Amino acid sequence: MDVKPFNLSSIMSIHPVTQAAMRSFDKASDPRLTEVMSLLVKHLHAFVTESQLTKEEWMQGLEFLTQSAAITDADRNEFSLLSDVLGISSIVDVVSQPVGGTSSSVLGPFHSQDSRWMDNGANLAGDQDGVRAWLHGRVLDVQGQPIAHAELDFWQNADNGLYPAQDPGQDPYNLRCKIKCEADGSFNLLTIRPNPYTVPTDGPVGALLVTSQRSVWRPAHYHVIVSAPGYVGLVTELFPQDSEYIDNDTVFGVREGLIVPFTPCQNTDVAERYGLTQPFLEVNFDFHLVKAP
Amino acid sequence: MDVKPFNLSSIMSIHPVTQAAMRSFDKASDPRLTEVMSLLVKHLHAFVTESQLTKEEWMQGLEFLTQSAAITDADRNEFSLLSDVLGISSIVDVVSQPVGGTSSSVLGPFHSQDSRWMDNGANLAGDQDGVRAWLHGRVLDVQGQPIAHAELDFWQNADNGLYPAQDPGQDPYNLRCKIKCEADGSFNLLTIRPNPYTVPTDGPVGALLVTSQRSVWRPAHYHVIVSAPGYVGLVTELFPQDSEYIDNDTVFGVREGLIVPFTPCQNTDVAERYGLTQPFLEVNFDFHLVKAP
Repeated sequence: MDVKPFNLSSIMSIHPVTQAAMRSFDKASDPRLTEVMSLLVKHLHAFVTESQLTKEEWMQGLEFLTQSAAITDADRNEFSLLSDVLGISSIVDVVSQPVGGTSSSVLGPFHSQDSRWMDNGANLAGDQDGVRAWLHGRVLDVQGQPIAHAELDFWQNADNGLYPAQDPGQDPYNLRCKIKCEADGSFNLLTIRPNPYTVPTDGPVGALLVTSQRSVWRPAHYHVIVSAPGYVGLVTELFPQDSEYIDNDTVFGVREGLIVPFTPCQNTDVAERYGLTQPFLEVNFDFHLVKAP
Repeated sequence: MDVKPFNLSSIMSIHPVTQAAMRSFDKASDPRLTEVMSLLVKHLHAFVTESQLTKEEWMQGLEFLTQSAAITDADRNEFSLLSDVLGISSIVDVVSQPVGGTSSSVLGPFHSQDSRWMDNGANLAGDQDGVRAWLHGRVLDVQGQPIAHAELDFWQNADNGLYPAQDPGQDPYNLRCKIKCEADGSFNLLTIRPNPYTVPTDGPVGALLVTSQRSVWRPAHYHVIVSAPGYVGLVTELFPQDSEYIDNDTVFGVREGLIVPFTPCQNTDVAERYGLTQPFLEVNFDFHLVKAP
């Protein structure tokens, strides 16, 4: 029986224009640049060809990028947001994830390099609004052995759903810190329950989401970067099991292993240590890091 | 014999993140928006997956777009240029080309809506530098029958390689015009031989071309829009056969049927009509338009 090869032309043009554009990067002195640009051309041309994109539609696309340029400045990057809501940031995260270990997730726009070092056990909640949550766990390798003195870089939003960068009413250092874990890999801190929030909707990306009748919400999450010498750094998020939008994250950051229960906590030592008089929650999560190659 | 289906995963991720991002546009009220965005997501994710793009590389990509945003304004669009040098503008042109008729080509950034109407036979050359060229031909349908009174919108660069928009020394209307063809489809005008030129190289796209050791040149060309009621409008270019860069157009606009000889002309009537005392060239080209659906 004759078996015809899969008809690639149905999903990818092999038009001479596509071939020429792919080959145009052949002479780059960095072979990785040649590879990446040639694949970018191939798949963008495949998109145009499969969608039979019209000139008017392409002009609309250019106009969208031009509007995105106009709203982009040092504090606001519409291209980063576009990458997020198309799932590009997330799939980049997926393909670069090392095998084994805790799932990574997207970095997002609210990480700051200059968070303050605090002692393990720190109280980030202070006197602000929000249900208290005691976050604790360990940093382990993929065999479950503790990694001594790993570092956590932690950030989240406040009870009003905003990050300090969005909210002049907050201390710029609110609800973020760096912590060095113990020799047995353990860490703990007191914070508040995080909250769902919307991505910025005042630019062309927001307009696209609205036109597409897409949600503009992200589910609640803690954001954590875990690092230790000799291990691959981990950028990840922890999502409360009962958060709204957990099944409909507009930036596609939720991974199964990162959905965690926030359970009522009865630990009187913890209550006493932080002076807690109201019911509070407990989140227990172990991070598993992969050895660096 | 068992035949396994083509392994799509080798060129396209079917990761749940890709599926979710594709499906996220399902609810758009315009089904074409759903289709285009879902295919855009599919092919961008396929690019990330096949290239195994790293986070650092993706950050470089975002930085590239951010730099492109910074240099883009009302007079200069780096995204349009990026589209051109990746061959996107050209493949959009290819897929939207109706069957039959003269090949179309890219519009480029130098078309102006406000060119002046001139009589058929106009002299665009005046007293400026440049080898004179007599451009003539007819506008016909795909059966070779004349289309009466079709309109030409013509523009080209000057002998120094610049368009009026780039060159304060030129009259803004230099070397461009609109002409109504005769009842028999014929047109003619006197102009100069066009010249190769470089795309703008002072932005991130120029830097990419240099890093990639790509040419920044376009071959010489006339740009023409041909239109007539009842026919699909044609945006096209005519390239002198002997132009430099004819095989290496950095925006991939050259099509085989658009490469034309510029031949020495002995026509004394023409020489007399325009008062030509130096050798001049002749370009004879018939445009074929496709009936509108």
